[in-house]
Amino acid sequence: MIIDCHGHYTTTPVQVGEYRENQKRALSKDPLTKGKKGRIIISDDEIRESIENNQLRLQQERGTDLTIFSPRASWMGHHIGNEHTSQYWTEHQNNLIKRVCDLFPNNFAPVAQLPQSPGVDPKKSVAEMVRTVEEMDFIGCNLNPDPSGGHWNGAPLSDPAFYPIYEKMCELDIPAMIHVSGSCNDNFHTTGSHYLGADTTAFQQLIMSNVFKDFPELKIIIPHGGGAVPYHWGRFRGLMQDQGYEPLEVSALKNIYFDTCVYHQKGIDLLLDIIPTENILFASEMIGAVRGVDPESGQYFDDTKHYIDNNQTLSEADKSLIFEGNIRRVFSRLNID
Amino acid sequence: MIIDCHGHYTTTPVQVGEYRENQKRALSKDPLTKGKKGRIIISDDEIRESIENNQLRLQQERGTDLTIFSPRASWMGHHIGNEHTSQYWTEHQNNLIKRVCDLFPNNFAPVAQLPQSPGVDPKKSVAEMVRTVEEMDFIGCNLNPDPSGGHWNGAPLSDPAFYPIYEKMCELDIPAMIHVSGSCNDNFHTTGSHYLGADTTAFQQLIMSNVFKDFPELKIIIPHGGGAVPYHWGRFRGLMQDQGYEPLEVSALKNIYFDTCVYHQKGIDLLLDIIPTENILFASEMIGAVRGVDPESGQYFDDTKHYIDNNQTLSEADKSLIFEGNIRRVFSRLNID
Repeated sequence: MIIDCHGHYTTTPVQVGEYRENQKRALSKDPLTKGKKGRIIISDDEIRESIENNQLRLQQERGTDLTIFSPRASWMGHHIGNEHTSQYWTEHQNNLIKRVCDLFPNNFAPVAQLPQSPGVDPKKSVAEMVRTVEEMDFIGCNLNPDPSGGHWNGAPLSDPAFYPIYEKMCELDIPAMIHVSGSCNDNFHTTGSHYLGADTTAFQQLIMSNVFKDFPELKIIIPHGGGAVPYHWGRFRGLMQDQGYEPLEVSALKNIYFDTCVYHQKGIDLLLDIIPTENILFASEMIGAVRGVDPESGQYFDDTKHYIDNNQTLSEADKSLIFEGNIRRVFSRLNID
Repeated sequence: MIIDCHGHYTTTPVQVGEYRENQKRALSKDPLTKGKKGRIIISDDEIRESIENNQLRLQQERGTDLTIFSPRASWMGHHIGNEHTSQYWTEHQNNLIKRVCDLFPNNFAPVAQLPQSPGVDPKKSVAEMVRTVEEMDFIGCNLNPDPSGGHWNGAPLSDPAFYPIYEKMCELDIPAMIHVSGSCNDNFHTTGSHYLGADTTAFQQLIMSNVFKDFPELKIIIPHGGGAVPYHWGRFRGLMQDQGYEPLEVSALKNIYFDTCVYHQKGIDLLLDIIPTENILFASEMIGAVRGVDPESGQYFDDTKHYIDNNQTLSEADKSLIFEGNIRRVFSRLNID
């Protein structure tokens, strides 16, 4: 079985965007508005259509079986509005993910976004973790290291403010993918520099922290191939050594996993060469950041299975770990044969 | 000849740090203080000693000939104080670089830091560019894309506010290395995530801007191997294509160069494989971010010449371009045989 651990519902019916625009309109009149959760009315057929013509079609075309599926990352928009805005929006988004997974139980497994909000204590997101995992069978969550949307004015992931989230993750035995949302800072391009910078930043915050000492069972996924990390593996190894930390293999790689959202053969080859196989999880981010076909290869840029298939170094057994075994170990609540 | 295009004066005599501490003390009493430029009294012998035992010794040990040398990047500290603070500090730092280069004219060539300051119009830095290039024979400058020190609350490099700098760079025929300074934001580790994130961010800002259309002769160096860029070359190519931009080869690689500050063999091999040879400039950042010896290779992490020597793909002619030819083309004011 081939499991893609990083897919987003980027093709939601238009009612979802309309709900969000209504939220923004209310906030423009009163930024502190609590508002109401309201409803997003979408039929099962509309959901089926939004999936069958997109993610499901591409799964079949590319030969993957199951996508671990979460709300559209760039739309989490934790910086928009206040904690109520985020709470309502997040509940709707997670409920939609649940409906997709119930409609296509063999093709999608659910991961939650969290109702983070700038300046709001991260522990307030614990209730949504519990709701989605315990009541709705979600198998993981996405944790935003910068809910400000590119202003980076909150606490780093090493801060004890995040500890209630880590504690509950361990208790529920779920991993978190560290994933920022859309940038509202003109300095950062959302799916380019913001995503990749945040990946590198999150890794750096964690490796020089006490987080993995305090939570030895914590499972963290750094997406987009780990940002700049594998390419600069020597720099990170050297910084750790210079500053008196234990080697990354001991201090970080028991807890940190990298996905394979790297969109060219040589980048994937580097990732597979540098990072131990047991720390790599297959992912494509499909349908996501890059949607076109690479004129050099004739393949979709984000068809990362193709790059792994073409890698000349790893054994089939290693590739099977990346495609399935490692993912089942990390997403231990996944229960699909 | 082997030219290292990225070295910093990280080993200044203690008087330099003392001057800076005095500035900070005055600012703690009055953040708006203009203060006075004052003096930093250092003898030629003290400068010789600080260089001979450090950068010069390592040049000789590693077999490099010339370092293009600028003030310590992490100490530029543009976020500290106000425009006067930065102006005085920058002039002293650049004057010290000039003294090093005059004492060791065969081993060092000078590059300037700029007196940037948060909220201050970048065009105010033009005078220091002119002073250092026209009066002191500097051959380039370092441009900080985030003078706030990790808060990213200024204009991106695509903003016309930077155009007076680009205009003067073209007129003087000097390149700029895009280089942030120390982070004062707890989210970012200076020499890890902040440097690498800024490199990626700067590249992203420029490739989707009009800067190279408006300044076709502009020469920009992205340090630290381009941050995450070569590893994610497919993502950037795909984003450009999806958003209707011309391919990077046409739109960016006539203006952007990458240095080789990547501290492991496989990272360097990827850089040399992905980026056209004519866009790569040899650099080590020595003495800089990582100072230790890699226990796996027995070599200094930052001995990047060693990795290029060991690369099995490029020809000697290509390596010669990276070590010298490309650097002489980009730093066209360099005048050492």
